Amino acid sequence: MVDKTERDLRKHFLQLTDYFSPKVIGKVNDVFVKVTKTKGDDVPWHSHGHEDEMFYIVKGSLIMELENSPKFSLNEGEYFIVEQGIRHRVSSEQECWILLIENASTKHTGDIQSDITKTIEEQL
Amino acid sequence: MVDKTERDLRKHFLQLTDYFSPKVIGKVNDVFVKVTKTKGDDVPWHSHGHEDEMFYIVKGSLIMELENSPKFSLNEGEYFIVEQGIRHRVSSEQECWILLIENASTKHTGDIQSDITKTIEEQL
Repeated sequence: MVDKTERDLRKHFLQLTDYFSPKVIGKVNDVFVKVTKTKGDDVPWHSHGHEDEMFYIVKGSLIMELENSPKFSLNEGEYFIVEQGIRHRVSSEQECWILLIENASTKHTGDIQSDITKTIEEQL
Repeated sequence: MVDKTERDLRKHFLQLTDYFSPKVIGKVNDVFVKVTKTKGDDVPWHSHGHEDEMFYIVKGSLIMELENSPKFSLNEGEYFIVEQGIRHRVSSEQECWILLIENASTKHTGDIQSDITKTIEEQL
């Protein structure tokens, strides 16, 4: 886990060196709070069987695609909760900063193993 | 629960009419995501026996007091997780907008019944 004495969320984002590599910044009981940066479309379509996932956009804009739905943008200050079992994919043309809230057991690319997949240990 | 189709966090804050009256804006498995506005020092000292609580400051500044620790301010863009069992109190001189992340079972003023205490039903 990152420096817990650092309370400024933006500083955690500034310390992220890689895209698509979430870092845990806190734990609220069974839930991890993570920061992640995206740029591009490397995230594969995936779902989380029994786990919801919240995206809050701190900076930039995220394209959200849900299976069988029109895609939409999430802009700075907006949030969306992908409910469990829903196949989804996120991407962004420019750098986007995302605050993620998800169960500690959630794999960030679901059961899909892709080039960007990180273990929980790699996220700590 | 508030309008789930509204994705703009700020609009949820603008719809809050009362201070110290958290509203649930989403659920991530067993965790509620809430918005609340504070102004003043009406929140009593309290703790949550087995539940952590995260505060993220969307606007303004919050004074955080933890038992046996020097008090400190949390400013816009900053966050802090009060770990379970820690007695705490929050207050603000001016209006402060807080995103709260806490277990669905968490009572917002712990086991303390005060003038501001709201049931979960009142927060939905």
